[in-house]
Formats: sequence, C-alpha cells, structure tokens
Amino acid sequence: MFRAISTLLASLTLAVPTIAENPIAIVIHGGAGTILRENLTPDVEAAYRDKLAEAVRAGHAVLADGGTGREAVIAAITLMEDSALFNAGHGAVFTHEGRVELDASIMDGSDLNAGAIASVTRVRNPIRLADRVLSHSPHVMLVGEGAEVFAADQGLPLVENSYFHTDRRRKALQRAIDEEREALSEDTGDIPVIVDDKHGTVGAVALDQYGNIAAGTSTGGMTNKRFGRVGDSPIIGAGTYADNRACGISATGHGEYFIRAAVAHDICARVLYGNRDLQTAADEVIQQQLVAMGAEGGVIGLAPDGTVVYSFNTAGMYRAAISSAGELSVGIYGESESMVSK
Amino acid sequence: MFRAISTLLASLTLAVPTIAENPIAIVIHGGAGTILRENLTPDVEAAYRDKLAEAVRAGHAVLADGGTGREAVIAAITLMEDSALFNAGHGAVFTHEGRVELDASIMDGSDLNAGAIASVTRVRNPIRLADRVLSHSPHVMLVGEGAEVFAADQGLPLVENSYFHTDRRRKALQRAIDEEREALSEDTGDIPVIVDDKHGTVGAVALDQYGNIAAGTSTGGMTNKRFGRVGDSPIIGAGTYADNRACGISATGHGEYFIRAAVAHDICARVLYGNRDLQTAADEVIQQQLVAMGAEGGVIGLAPDGTVVYSFNTAGMYRAAISSAGELSVGIYGESESMVSK
Repeated sequence: MFRAISTLLASLTLAVPTIAENPIAIVIHGGAGTILRENLTPDVEAAYRDKLAEAVRAGHAVLADGGTGREAVIAAITLMEDSALFNAGHGAVFTHEGRVELDASIMDGSDLNAGAIASVTRVRNPIRLADRVLSHSPHVMLVGEGAEVFAADQGLPLVENSYFHTDRRRKALQRAIDEEREALSEDTGDIPVIVDDKHGTVGAVALDQYGNIAAGTSTGGMTNKRFGRVGDSPIIGAGTYADNRACGISATGHGEYFIRAAVAHDICARVLYGNRDLQTAADEVIQQQLVAMGAEGGVIGLAPDGTVVYSFNTAGMYRAAISSAGELSVGIYGESESMVSK
Repeated sequence: MFRAISTLLASLTLAVPTIAENPIAIVIHGGAGTILRENLTPDVEAAYRDKLAEAVRAGHAVLADGGTGREAVIAAITLMEDSALFNAGHGAVFTHEGRVELDASIMDGSDLNAGAIASVTRVRNPIRLADRVLSHSPHVMLVGEGAEVFAADQGLPLVENSYFHTDRRRKALQRAIDEEREALSEDTGDIPVIVDDKHGTVGAVALDQYGNIAAGTSTGGMTNKRFGRVGDSPIIGAGTYADNRACGISATGHGEYFIRAAVAHDICARVLYGNRDLQTAADEVIQQQLVAMGAEGGVIGLAPDGTVVYSFNTAGMYRAAISSAGELSVGIYGESESMVSK
C-alpha cells in the first residue's frame, strides 16, 4: 500500500503517467572531491545543478515509462558523458600522452550480469559499450583496441579522440606535469603520486518497477595517468556492483583504494551477510575503512525498497536523486546543506 | 603451544631450519576443469604431480627461510609460469590472433595492497610484474602496452611472444576456431561462446611467519579470446583477494562468472561478516552460488590460522599444499582420492 502511494506521488510530482505498482527510484553522482562553495561561482554551481537535475530526470523518465534499471542508468550517464562538466566522455581528463582514455561498467542486479570496458579512445558513450558487452558478448570485460573493434562490430558511434578534448582538462594535464617535474626533483625511483583534481567520475543506480536494481559508472580516470592505468570504475565489485537482494552501488574517488577495498561489493556484502542496512554499510566502508586507509571518495546507492543512500568522506559530491516518493533532490557540498530539493 | 609444535613438525618433515614461532603454510593450484584419470597417461599425471610438488616446495622454502607471503607466492607461481604444463607464462593459450596475452595479480593481506596487470605479451613472468605494480607504482592495475613500458622501466626480463608458444596450445586454438566456425553456421549475431579447455590458470596463497597472508593468480586466459577480453585472474576481488583478518583466496574457472560473483572477495566477506569458517564460505560460493549460475571452477585458500581450503565444482583441480604441520599433499582429481600425500 505504501509502495503504491509512493508511486502515485512520483507520478503526480513529475506528471509522468505510470502504471507501476512497485517503487521506482534513481540516484546519480558526478564525482566527489574537495568541492567547496567558495571555489564555485554561482554560474558554475547552477550549471552543475541543472545538468544533474536533467540527468536524473532523464533516467527517471525511463523508469516511469516502464523502462529497465539498465536503460535508466544508461540514459542518465549518457547525458553526463556528453557534458563537459564531468570527467567522463566529452570533457574527460587527459593521459600523460595527451589523449583521453575512457573506462566504464554496468551491472544488472537481477542476474548479476555485467559489462565493463577500459582504455577506449574512440567510443562516444562508454557506458553504452559496457552495456553491449553485458548484452551481446559472452565476456564481462574488454580492454583497449579490442574493445573498440567490438564497438565497431556493434555499430556504436565512434568519434575522433579530439571530440573528448577540452581546454580545461588540457590545462589540468599541464599543471600535473609541472607538479610532477617538481616532485621528481626529489626522485625516489618510484612513480610519483600525482595529486589530482579527481572530480567528475559519473555514476547512476536505478530501481525499476520490476524490482530490479542496476548500477553503472563511467570515467576518464586520473589526469596524467600512464602505463595503461585502470582505476576502479570498470572493475565490477570495486566501482560498480548490483545485487537485487541487497544493493546497487556506484563509487567515485581514489580508484586504487577502491579496488583494494572492493568497495561496491563490500558494501553489498555487509548488507547480505552482516545484516546492516545499506546506509550503515556504506558509512562503515566510506567513513571508517577508507578513512583508515587514507582514501578519499564516496558512493551512491539504492536499497531494494528504493531507499536512496549517499556516503562520502570528501568536502563534496555532485549528486542528485528522485526518490520512490517522486522527490527530486540535488546536492553538491557536505551534509549540512546536503540534498536541498530543487 | 600447538602452533610451536606445528612449526617444529614442519621443520622436521622438510628438514629446513626455521626459528618461526608462528605457523607457515602454502597452497597452490594449476587450474580446475574436466580433469579425469582416464584422460591423463601415467607419465603426464606424474609430470603434473612433480611440478606441483616442486612449486609448492619452492614457496614453502621461502616461508621457512623467513621470507614473506608475497615472496612465497611469487616463487611458486614463477615455477608454474615457466612450465609448459600450465596456462600461464610459457605454455599459455593463444588468442584468436595467434599470440599469447597474459594476466596476473597479487595481493598482500597485511595492508590490502595489490598489483595487477592484463594483456601483456612480452613479460616473461607476469606475477613479478604484478608485484612491481604493487610495490613500485601508486597504481593497482596496468593494462596492455603501458604495462610493458612499466615492466621495461623496472628492468624485468622481456621475451619475444614466441617464447610463450607451444604446439599443444596452437592446436587448441585451431580446434577452437574450427568449432566456432561450426557454431557460426547457426549465427545469432552475437559472439559465440567457445567451449574451451580452460585448465591451467595458476595461483598460490601463502601465510608467512609474520602472520601475513598473500595471494596471487596468473593466466593466459581463454583459448581463442579476442577483443582484449580480460577474465577474473587480474581482477582484485574476483580471481585474487587477501585480508589477514579472514583469508587469502586464488580462483580458477570460467572467469566471467567469477567476476560477476566477485568470488574471492565474497568468500572473505562471508567469513568477516557472516561468521562462516573459510571452508564453509568457499563451499557456499563454489558449490552453491556458482553452480546455480552454471559456472565451473574452484578456489584455493588459507585461513589466518593456516588452515588449507579447497573447493571446486569440476571433476578435478591441480593442487598442492604444505600445511602448517609441514605435511605435503598433491591432488588432481575429485575429493575421494583428494590430497594423497606424496
């Protein structure tokens, strides 16, 4: 009964017709980091809020129209990949060699099927390629040129690498290279850790009216990355995980730590085996384990009943949701201002 | 007291001097699959048993000599990578294009540090490169040519791809291509699933006298693989996981399912959050969840007290261990003949 009313409210609030009896919900992120109010002009802040609202509405419209969780995740992430505001698709960060290499993954919580791609340079929407790996190949993960050949076979739109380029990210690369040069003056023989503006990995988690949870993540990785570095975004269990019994999770942050802690799967496992609710599980991993490891970042998640979850140990995380009650919320900074409804 | 006696027994049995007070143990695998007694000649079976015993002894010698779990894992896996008996290093399977592409990972349970590499073609011992990623880079995962550049920077031995080639694996590729051609006569538009001889991924888990567990895995992947396919072996949480609080795990099997189920991390999580012992946790994942998904394979593992664990849902798994009591065991087929001491 409560579920039916929630859905009715969702329909009314958004004025989208739906015959759904079950809750639908969606939550998205556009990266976590040292995002402070004093560093964003009102115009830039408004641009982020508008794009986040547009993306989460696009995903919700798919759900309200009877679409699947995977389709909603793809709709929301595609809009963010196409926006220069985020570190995914157009506007992604540069590698050390001055090109863009993209990673993405998607998972369906109904059957634990998954698709992931890493280090692709010509696929306009990496999240769509990850979904084709899920649906049209016997594999889960494809990397590099092989993944591009598969993309071409699948008829997905290919672009020149320059399509992804923006001046803002090119300048960030130059800064990173300059900082690295300074760091190397005290050379230890190892590869220096580049302190980086890691904001901008995008992700989405959606619960459809069929009770299925899907999660997806897409990124350009780290500015100045090299050696074919792959972060957590395309790693099933680290950046993305979905299991109808427990959770859908998409992560953003210092990817190496997120892989080592198997963040997305660990949160789900604490729910499944440790009887935590999803918010508690997410907080244990993000606020305790990752903090103890010295790692920054955050996650978004949905519980099987549609409860929206955020946890981040950074100053801010670009985020938005439409709850099972149909309420839109958009947030950028820390919890106090948190999810001001828009 | 029991631990001290165990260690004493280990010393006596192996005649290796040690001043360790804590238990040491090591377990290795050389792949799981439809390995049946009637398909192995006595000579071939003896060759596998000898090489497994040699590899596990090499790892144990490192531990008895005060070496770390990581060093023991590397010693054991390097011997199997160098042997044509296994699908790793020399003797690995061919890709569709007729070359060898190798994946490996290693994890240290003391600090959850990890290293992984995928799709390398010239690094003689991939497990050593994975360990250099762990110890000498700020990253966890490097793929493709970038990983080779890093290997060269690190001074690791590089070889021509032909070093890895064997006639046996070249014939397996031809068989797979022929079978695929038949399968394609009933083309569905998707990539056909190739039924493959997947035996041979290798792995090791070691507990050192400092109480640290390390786990590693190395493979050539699937015969006839293409599109830059990456399986579970280099995925931290899928093919490999180690956490001193709960477990070390190395997996072998149908990699796509092992990624989707996050096998290695899930087994550890069931111990940590669900209070299972490690054998129960491994059996739940391998004998129940994976069987329900239709996936074949197995795992080896060590608990923090040195208890050796195996679980496989295939006819056989090449495996060997030296327990904390110093007992060597080597096994190939199902549980009935299981771990006959050699």
